[in-house]
Amino acid sequence: MMKKTAYIISHSHWDREWFLPLETLRYRLVTLLDETANLLENKDGFDYFHLDGQTIMLEDYLSVKPGERERMERLVRDGKLRVGPWYMLQDAFLTSSEANVRNLLYGMQDAQAFGAVERIGYFPDTFGIYGQAPQLVKQAGMDSVIFGRGVKPTGFNNQVFEGGYTSPFSEMYWEAPDGTRVLGVLLANWYSNGNEIPVERAAAKAFWDRKLSDVNAYASTGALLFLNGCDHQPVQVDLPEALDVARELYPDIDFKHSNFTEYVSELRKLLPSDDLQVIEGELTNQRTDGWSTLVNTASSRMYLKQANQRVQQLLEKLVEPIAVMATQVGKTVYPEEYLKFAWKLLMENQIHDSITGCSVDAVHREMETRFMKAEQAARAILDDKVTGIVRQMDTIAKFDGGAESIPIVVFHTSGYAATRVVTMDVELERTYFAEMPFEEIPAYLNGLPSVRLEIRDENGNLVDVDVTELGMQFDYELPDRAFRKPYFARRYQVSFVAEDLPRLGFATYFAVPVAGEIEVVSVENDANRLENQFLEVAIAENGSYSVSCKESGQIFFWAWNVCGSR
Amino acid sequence: MMKKTAYIISHSHWDREWFLPLETLRYRLVTLLDETANLLENKDGFDYFHLDGQTIMLEDYLSVKPGERERMERLVRDGKLRVGPWYMLQDAFLTSSEANVRNLLYGMQDAQAFGAVERIGYFPDTFGIYGQAPQLVKQAGMDSVIFGRGVKPTGFNNQVFEGGYTSPFSEMYWEAPDGTRVLGVLLANWYSNGNEIPVERAAAKAFWDRKLSDVNAYASTGALLFLNGCDHQPVQVDLPEALDVARELYPDIDFKHSNFTEYVSELRKLLPSDDLQVIEGELTNQRTDGWSTLVNTASSRMYLKQANQRVQQLLEKLVEPIAVMATQVGKTVYPEEYLKFAWKLLMENQIHDSITGCSVDAVHREMETRFMKAEQAARAILDDKVTGIVRQMDTIAKFDGGAESIPIVVFHTSGYAATRVVTMDVELERTYFAEMPFEEIPAYLNGLPSVRLEIRDENGNLVDVDVTELGMQFDYELPDRAFRKPYFARRYQVSFVAEDLPRLGFATYFAVPVAGEIEVVSVENDANRLENQFLEVAIAENGSYSVSCKESGQIFFWAWNVCGSR
Repeated sequence: MMKKTAYIISHSHWDREWFLPLETLRYRLVTLLDETANLLENKDGFDYFHLDGQTIMLEDYLSVKPGERERMERLVRDGKLRVGPWYMLQDAFLTSSEANVRNLLYGMQDAQAFGAVERIGYFPDTFGIYGQAPQLVKQAGMDSVIFGRGVKPTGFNNQVFEGGYTSPFSEMYWEAPDGTRVLGVLLANWYSNGNEIPVERAAAKAFWDRKLSDVNAYASTGALLFLNGCDHQPVQVDLPEALDVARELYPDIDFKHSNFTEYVSELRKLLPSDDLQVIEGELTNQRTDGWSTLVNTASSRMYLKQANQRVQQLLEKLVEPIAVMATQVGKTVYPEEYLKFAWKLLMENQIHDSITGCSVDAVHREMETRFMKAEQAARAILDDKVTGIVRQMDTIAKFDGGAESIPIVVFHTSGYAATRVVTMDVELERTYFAEMPFEEIPAYLNGLPSVRLEIRDENGNLVDVDVTELGMQFDYELPDRAFRKPYFARRYQVSFVAEDLPRLGFATYFAVPVAGEIEVVSVENDANRLENQFLEVAIAENGSYSVSCKESGQIFFWAWNVCGSR
Repeated sequence: MMKKTAYIISHSHWDREWFLPLETLRYRLVTLLDETANLLENKDGFDYFHLDGQTIMLEDYLSVKPGERERMERLVRDGKLRVGPWYMLQDAFLTSSEANVRNLLYGMQDAQAFGAVERIGYFPDTFGIYGQAPQLVKQAGMDSVIFGRGVKPTGFNNQVFEGGYTSPFSEMYWEAPDGTRVLGVLLANWYSNGNEIPVERAAAKAFWDRKLSDVNAYASTGALLFLNGCDHQPVQVDLPEALDVARELYPDIDFKHSNFTEYVSELRKLLPSDDLQVIEGELTNQRTDGWSTLVNTASSRMYLKQANQRVQQLLEKLVEPIAVMATQVGKTVYPEEYLKFAWKLLMENQIHDSITGCSVDAVHREMETRFMKAEQAARAILDDKVTGIVRQMDTIAKFDGGAESIPIVVFHTSGYAATRVVTMDVELERTYFAEMPFEEIPAYLNGLPSVRLEIRDENGNLVDVDVTELGMQFDYELPDRAFRKPYFARRYQVSFVAEDLPRLGFATYFAVPVAGEIEVVSVENDANRLENQFLEVAIAENGSYSVSCKESGQIFFWAWNVCGSR
């Protein structure tokens, strides 16, 4: 019989926030990394620590201990502390494709900045995985994936049930829709199957007999994988002693303190040539017994999902393409670092226990603030880049609407031409505090003659518009090279249809002030009645009221807590 | 006539969040620091930039551009970028004395880590300053203070009114209650009196004629101070050219691009020997004309003040002393970095436009999350240190209440002995999931005989206690060296009076389970009446009810919206 090798990989699965909030768990994270660094530096036989596939753990640690950065870099460079490839352990379905790409991109950048990337697609706890994951990791230079869920029915404590398992082995090939194939290793006995290894001989014997049997039930080769860790697991300080005992107890097995790169490399040499299963596409085949909450995370705390979608779309569909456009028209550079900053603010919320809404309330309260901040950062980039583009345009040349006409540039960042309703504010008579004593400005503006606004396209053609007069309003400019400039102005909301917007481009319109009142549909009224050419509203003695449509004759009737039509 | 010197100090007063939220302003901060660094490195005659006396600006910048740290350090080391002494520009009255000390301590630590501290007590915008400020800055090795408010009546745009000024000069001495005296310089024409200096000759002449006259009205010497900046002011890129024009226009004046250290050092040589005013104690003499909102910031958004007080007290009165105690009893170290981290979370909220409650809603929403996080961090330290201390105690030896007795350690961190009511939860029969199938634990616990709890002091004396049975509850332990241990237990809330707690110490009590039911005061009731030996509650037909005290005979009567006694 060939000698088997047990690969023991020390790690701690770090749910950044979950049943406790971030700042409570961060304290334990700092302890974990301090202790781990000490072991890696000083303890014989404690050679590696896998930092759960996510670089955010190092960020969180260094926020408290910024002075330890060089020490961490040294441990990563020396191959002892294994970091990346992800920035964080995301939920794979509640986040966009681009978000998953960025997560890998930023994670690999940051891991590399520390000194090295652990090039294993690591999905230990992901609640199901998208089918293109093999493509993503392959394009990022990886050919192996480790995952904990998605191809097996599991019960309490994430153990595989007897029977019903879609692959006979924990090793298999995983194929994406485009045919990309990677080696996949299922953590069939979960990511804790080598946790808390006893040093005491009798306990160690009982432990290993059970754990070896569990692993052998699924292993296709003699390379046996043991994960020495679990959720927020403190590092096992006597692991080298425990492995010495194991070596004495099982002389036929080679116990190695190892890392995923080494394990996968050795595993590949031993894989059976033809009888590994090929699984395809999405890994969602997790038939839980209902005890688990995972199945309900797609719909819990829906406001979080909505906020994530809003900010994700803002970054992907507006900020990114506009930032790229801006690089084409002038001296502005692509805001790579700021986009990374904004994305990271959002990504803190895309972690698998965060966006899923399955954590304690304090976690989700903090998430609302993060969404708000990510949106602020995204809009700050957007505003700056839009301004940068518009300043390069000679809108005056396009249409001569007179000195008073206000150019409106409508950006369209989709890859398809489209017709869209544009609703925005337009200001007239912006009057700065520097121009007259500020308390005199309102009377000055109110004394100006009424105007109405026309919208014309760049050829001067009139475009239908709805205008709402918003009245005189205070606001300020923040110039690039000067102090803020407060002003009052007359503000109008305009709504018009922009026809056939070009793909990934823009169209120019002009708001043109024209002498005269805004056309108001005439209203007649007495104490209990309002009427114009379209509608009549009548208020009855009992407080109910009716709205009649003159054209159709239909009457809508409202009373206290009663709403219907008759 | 002696030649006068104009000291031009470039800066930008950085309200971190105010009329715009943090993430919107951070974008402008990044631009500011990028542009400033380029000028300092490449532009002749642009020699210094004062970073507003607060190191948090560098932190905020480096969050986006971590790769620029070395560049910033080089600029600080070279004396070009002037940083510190504060961590942030706090409100001086809405924050505790200790918070002000920490602000200076951490600011000086961080500035030093960048390479140098600008050793000037800088209070540009503080809404009034405490009287001991001269003591604080002097003990930190500084002998000069620059401030913008507190000794003058001001109107719109923070300009000093004619008359009513308590010092004839912008220079004065400021004396603390203990007699400590520092040089104080009032920014009599605000921190923007050298802002946006024109290059064009005619505009420059008009600018300088007015600004020189304004400064000369208050300057006691020929050292004239001009602050080239204002709120969120972009750096003036053509300042060297503007100063060249000034030199041509005013050959009698030596225009120097300078920094506060140089200015104060030169100023000291020129100060009139005996006719500077000495001001004493608090600087609150700001008689605004009511247009300013500053006067109302002490009471606006009171929930922020309450949260600040709660977290501040937690850090100062519990976490810090307990952390020090913990260093005395074992191998635990004082958590310097973690305390700094927790304090900094709180300090973000103590900035003068934040804790004052005068910002836009988005700012104050983020502050609520920060308070929550600061409290989580503080409690994480506290829990760890309390546990560390208690583990060193041999509570068993103090009182033999039997194996079932539960020691309770009451810490008291005040400098005075005191008697306090202690209210806390006590658990009995903690039964771990590892001990039996978890779904069987509730029935097991419910089947155990009832007990009541006694409280005894460390000499075994009985202490009066109120006990509330909270029923069977789920919870978990997070051990230092093992995976979390979920359990069910029977939980009780106990309330007792701890007499004569020692100052900065602790006392030990014991909860002792005793066979038998918890003594319940017997209650008789019928449909509209509850009665025991002390009280009778009667509900009348109209829904009102009365509570009668049997001993005193007094009757309290409540009805709908009516509350009184008769």
